Amino acid sequence: MKQRVEIVRRILDSNEQLAELNRKKLDEHQVFAINIMASPGAGKTTFILQTIAKLPKDLRLGVIEGDTAPVTIDSDKITAVGMPAVQINTGGDCHLDANMVGLAIDELDLDEIDLLLIENVGNLICPAGFALGNHANIVISSIPEGDDKPYKYPNIYRNIDVLIINKIDLSPYIDFRMDYFREGVEMLNPGLKTFAVSSKTGEGFEPWIEWLDEKVRTSQG
Amino acid sequence: MKQRVEIVRRILDSNEQLAELNRKKLDEHQVFAINIMASPGAGKTTFILQTIAKLPKDLRLGVIEGDTAPVTIDSDKITAVGMPAVQINTGGDCHLDANMVGLAIDELDLDEIDLLLIENVGNLICPAGFALGNHANIVISSIPEGDDKPYKYPNIYRNIDVLIINKIDLSPYIDFRMDYFREGVEMLNPGLKTFAVSSKTGEGFEPWIEWLDEKVRTSQG
Repeated sequence: MKQRVEIVRRILDSNEQLAELNRKKLDEHQVFAINIMASPGAGKTTFILQTIAKLPKDLRLGVIEGDTAPVTIDSDKITAVGMPAVQINTGGDCHLDANMVGLAIDELDLDEIDLLLIENVGNLICPAGFALGNHANIVISSIPEGDDKPYKYPNIYRNIDVLIINKIDLSPYIDFRMDYFREGVEMLNPGLKTFAVSSKTGEGFEPWIEWLDEKVRTSQG
Repeated sequence: MKQRVEIVRRILDSNEQLAELNRKKLDEHQVFAINIMASPGAGKTTFILQTIAKLPKDLRLGVIEGDTAPVTIDSDKITAVGMPAVQINTGGDCHLDANMVGLAIDELDLDEIDLLLIENVGNLICPAGFALGNHANIVISSIPEGDDKPYKYPNIYRNIDVLIINKIDLSPYIDFRMDYFREGVEMLNPGLKTFAVSSKTGEGFEPWIEWLDEKVRTSQG
């Protein structure tokens, strides 16, 4: 058991080192990168597509799509709107890691990208433990998943910079106590920046786009 | 790396052995056990509550609740309807394993139980790899998660006995191509027994309850 713990520690240490290399490379090319985490079906890809549609056209985007299987459903949707996308197949692993992201970054022309959106594998547990080298961490929670998620999956909400509450168009049909949900998040991550949106209709995207646009431009000095 | 692979193999082997012990114990006491897997927020606990409400009253139930955090939200709901429930806190791990379930089983009076419902941690990836010793594996997919889940998370659909399609009450408000979803499942698990239900309204539960009731009674000879 001690041996196992030691190996897990070394894997995490080596991931941290690779994440730092990714960060250095992104910074050299003035690329602002975001790691987007969520449950399966929370609407990550639709959120990315709506974000692409609403961002000012002078911002140049790239997308990395994480999947556990060799399917290109999500990356096809991104390239269909004319954006460069690289797909990572984790081969069944429950999260992206810095090594996978490093290899994907090398396939992109970073000089042609201002903002890199990284869609992590659909999972509320594993991705929280693995740094990728990105500048901001985002979790998307969707209304149909229920208002108890921060209480049941606390770790994922702890070290993030933005929380997106998605699928608010379904609010009339679902018992979701927004106050209870927000209280749970507030305990884990006080003052967390939160945007409630519908990625399907585009409702609520303006303040999120404003926040993101400013972050990218500020990072470029 | 070879060392890491070897240790992972030994962990899985030892899990198999513990799962067999669980199975033996369950069989000795004529307990039929089901492992319920799903994404976070697919409605596992509500499905269990509706199943409890609809099963014939002479069937005696027990529930094991898997959580990644020390919260009793789900197990409280079960005990509130008068059922014995044991909560497992995985301490951040992304799945139950046979050792955890074995310890939980020891806290239940198996002579007083005909059917044991095991609610796994909310995750579409990790639980697929860990046998628990139960007799049937079930996945719950919910309509709001989207119709592409079998394509993107194939492993979890492969070795299951029943698929529940939950939250059909939300169908009018969501673009969910049932044919596309079912085709994906059929490729992975031909002829899989599937029930479409709403755990909220109780719609569609009759055939599922009939299937389950018969399975439990047949197992008891």
